[in-house]
Amino acid sequence: MASLFLKTPGPSQSFPKTHKTHFVLPQNLPLSWRSKYRAGAAAAAAVRIRCGLIEPDGGKLVELVVEEPQRDLKRRQALSLPQIKLSKIDIQWVHVLSEGWASPLKGFMRESEFLQTLHFNSLRLGDGSVVNMSVPIVLAIDDSNKNNIGDSSSVALVDDKDNPIAILNDVEIYKHNKEERTARTWGTTAPGLPYAEQAITHAGNWLIGGDLEVIEPIKYHDGLDRFRLSPAELRDEFTRRNADAVFAFQLRNPVHNGHALLMTDTRRRLLEMGYKNPVLLLHPLGGYTKADDVPLEWRMKQHEMVLEDGVLDPETTVVSIFPSPMHYAGPTEVQWHAKARINAGANFYIVGRDPAGMGHPLEKRDLYDADHGKKVLSMAPGLERLNILPFKVAAYDKTQNGMAFFDPSRPQDFLFISGTKMRALAKNKENPPDGFMCPGGWKVLVDYYDSLTPSENGRVPEPVPV
Amino acid sequence: MASLFLKTPGPSQSFPKTHKTHFVLPQNLPLSWRSKYRAGAAAAAAVRIRCGLIEPDGGKLVELVVEEPQRDLKRRQALSLPQIKLSKIDIQWVHVLSEGWASPLKGFMRESEFLQTLHFNSLRLGDGSVVNMSVPIVLAIDDSNKNNIGDSSSVALVDDKDNPIAILNDVEIYKHNKEERTARTWGTTAPGLPYAEQAITHAGNWLIGGDLEVIEPIKYHDGLDRFRLSPAELRDEFTRRNADAVFAFQLRNPVHNGHALLMTDTRRRLLEMGYKNPVLLLHPLGGYTKADDVPLEWRMKQHEMVLEDGVLDPETTVVSIFPSPMHYAGPTEVQWHAKARINAGANFYIVGRDPAGMGHPLEKRDLYDADHGKKVLSMAPGLERLNILPFKVAAYDKTQNGMAFFDPSRPQDFLFISGTKMRALAKNKENPPDGFMCPGGWKVLVDYYDSLTPSENGRVPEPVPV
Repeated sequence: MASLFLKTPGPSQSFPKTHKTHFVLPQNLPLSWRSKYRAGAAAAAAVRIRCGLIEPDGGKLVELVVEEPQRDLKRRQALSLPQIKLSKIDIQWVHVLSEGWASPLKGFMRESEFLQTLHFNSLRLGDGSVVNMSVPIVLAIDDSNKNNIGDSSSVALVDDKDNPIAILNDVEIYKHNKEERTARTWGTTAPGLPYAEQAITHAGNWLIGGDLEVIEPIKYHDGLDRFRLSPAELRDEFTRRNADAVFAFQLRNPVHNGHALLMTDTRRRLLEMGYKNPVLLLHPLGGYTKADDVPLEWRMKQHEMVLEDGVLDPETTVVSIFPSPMHYAGPTEVQWHAKARINAGANFYIVGRDPAGMGHPLEKRDLYDADHGKKVLSMAPGLERLNILPFKVAAYDKTQNGMAFFDPSRPQDFLFISGTKMRALAKNKENPPDGFMCPGGWKVLVDYYDSLTPSENGRVPEPVPV
Repeated sequence: MASLFLKTPGPSQSFPKTHKTHFVLPQNLPLSWRSKYRAGAAAAAAVRIRCGLIEPDGGKLVELVVEEPQRDLKRRQALSLPQIKLSKIDIQWVHVLSEGWASPLKGFMRESEFLQTLHFNSLRLGDGSVVNMSVPIVLAIDDSNKNNIGDSSSVALVDDKDNPIAILNDVEIYKHNKEERTARTWGTTAPGLPYAEQAITHAGNWLIGGDLEVIEPIKYHDGLDRFRLSPAELRDEFTRRNADAVFAFQLRNPVHNGHALLMTDTRRRLLEMGYKNPVLLLHPLGGYTKADDVPLEWRMKQHEMVLEDGVLDPETTVVSIFPSPMHYAGPTEVQWHAKARINAGANFYIVGRDPAGMGHPLEKRDLYDADHGKKVLSMAPGLERLNILPFKVAAYDKTQNGMAFFDPSRPQDFLFISGTKMRALAKNKENPPDGFMCPGGWKVLVDYYDSLTPSENGRVPEPVPV
């Protein structure tokens, strides 16, 4: 990663506002602004901007990583407990939970949370308030795990090398009705849903919920950990930048100039609304994605080139990785994508056409109506505080040789380049029209497909999923 | 129907409190208590008991039948509009909507209501409040209907003889994604769901929503119309009886002594809680049911015998028919069953094991977890005002020769007689153990199965569904 991805100075150092950077180093800062806020007016004045960030769901960011002095103790405790081996996707969910993206969840869902998620896409809290929660964050176990756990109220969660990752306390084991879970989450039970094939179909027939204690921060050691900022770290970064509005853009695809146009235009609109310093959270999803999506590593390279080319303003853009796995559950999942960004401090969310959508696994059509995502998002319980910004449609304007907002009065001037078309061009080393994507970004895509060396029969092998 | 089903005097007549009756004649009384309540303290005192009834969802019972003087005009108007032919189930939904069971819905759902129902089982109202709404109340049309409607903003809804039933205004036509609707409502898309086979699978690919004007009250002319009290009529009846608590019991099966024990015990508990006059709404479902359920006509005969036998106290029981069709959608549908009873004035709802459940259409198991209904109901958005009374399990106690609450300390003394077992006994003209059901009620069941004359090959034909 190049200079634009430099670490910023630590909290004790001065932070020049003109410093052009997208990233900050994770600093494990305590989220102390709420208590400061409550300490009185003088303190409140000192943290005025911090108080301006949207409050996390449930009022408090739930962070589940145990403090350093406790970690050895917890590791030893884990050794004495029944063990559950986590898949890579399970670990991604531990990561998500540990940093409070799913606040106020304190661990894998117990049955009451699972049922509320499936039926209502939301959770009612003890005080009667409602937070959004649309995808089940659950841990599946099989019969032998269940027998092994017996009456133990705590279990150790370990990785594939039996290293303890977390302890789950006050556990509750309940039935994993896979058909019902799939039907209510995706609105279909058709075989071929990527997440279901990966994490549900072959998973155990039980779910185990409980309160998590995560032994240390989750790291992947893939060269990208420094870009994985937690909600607390992002909030701190927005505060340092004196952001008075944070608008989040979720993506799992390469950025083209249409995206850039949209993000720039959004900032312009927010300035018009009277905000003084709207900051963009450009937030690629970093967890499980389906095999034919461009892998995170290559997407990050592509995003870097786009930023280097100056398509987006580094001063008002924070690029970070969202650690969640992808469900491809359309209108259900887009709520999760939005809700998690509230917890990271975003109060505006850009929603596109068919968010988190995909083709129907069996039929020749999109699985979801392209407009349902933004409609459902705008009506979703617990997201009333979030400002939803519907995506304007951008397309290639042949009269301007560049991406522009589609003008329905002259449709003949516009060219729509779908993700499928884009991938096909890059695979075949063809170039898109000038102005579709910056050349450096396009080269990354071509290099990626080039890296998938054809096998002996001349066919490019399918990438291996997580 | 016998004496217990007598009409009560009209509103201008005196109403002796000791009069033993279950039924009142529909009187189309305006629901004026709210305006009286607001007229001031003196008026409020006069309608004290009325004010004690739980408020309808949205604050006001929505009644959609046009006033008598307007009916001819509306009939003529209907003749000039594009027509949609209603199925029997469609007419049942018009009935449901017309009387305000689904308040605050004013007609068949538009897309925003449909999506909120599918995703959240609830609707957010203009003032930000939330009401429960778990099953889609929608009207399907096909391509030729859609073409025929064209740009017309109103359509006429007609019965199978082209008699106008209602006018739908400010219509909105949107896609009917049957797979998604089924998956999100039932948690399965397995073929063989009775309601889906009857009303979805072969229905049109579009849904039409809008505001309903129902030309006259829906009647079925089956001898049972007088037992179909609207929510307004039920509220009036509860008020006349000075009910200070109304507990609803939804059923679609014959009543046995276990049910009766439960209802009697519920009243006892409510009295212990300090209520002076809890009234039971015994509320058999009267719309579409699957072919192997006992038809409404026979169930009503059976309920009558149970009441004649004195198993339930007529003075504190109102028997009426709930006009909704049955979805068999378990935890999703039980919310609808409860919500509709709020609109009828019930503030307590008895929920049993596996409410609105059935066997999985393809697998050898129940479609729903038997406990999910009551769990989901207790957490459902918009039902916070309703008191949920979980069903205690009753079984045949061999030591007492009667139905009793199951005592887990002596399981060997109890005999569980399932609905399937009960139907099998009645079909074969065998008797259940003494004390399971009153003899008059049992005879009705035997007579019903007897009435299904075996065809020439000696097999009892399957009853024809609605």
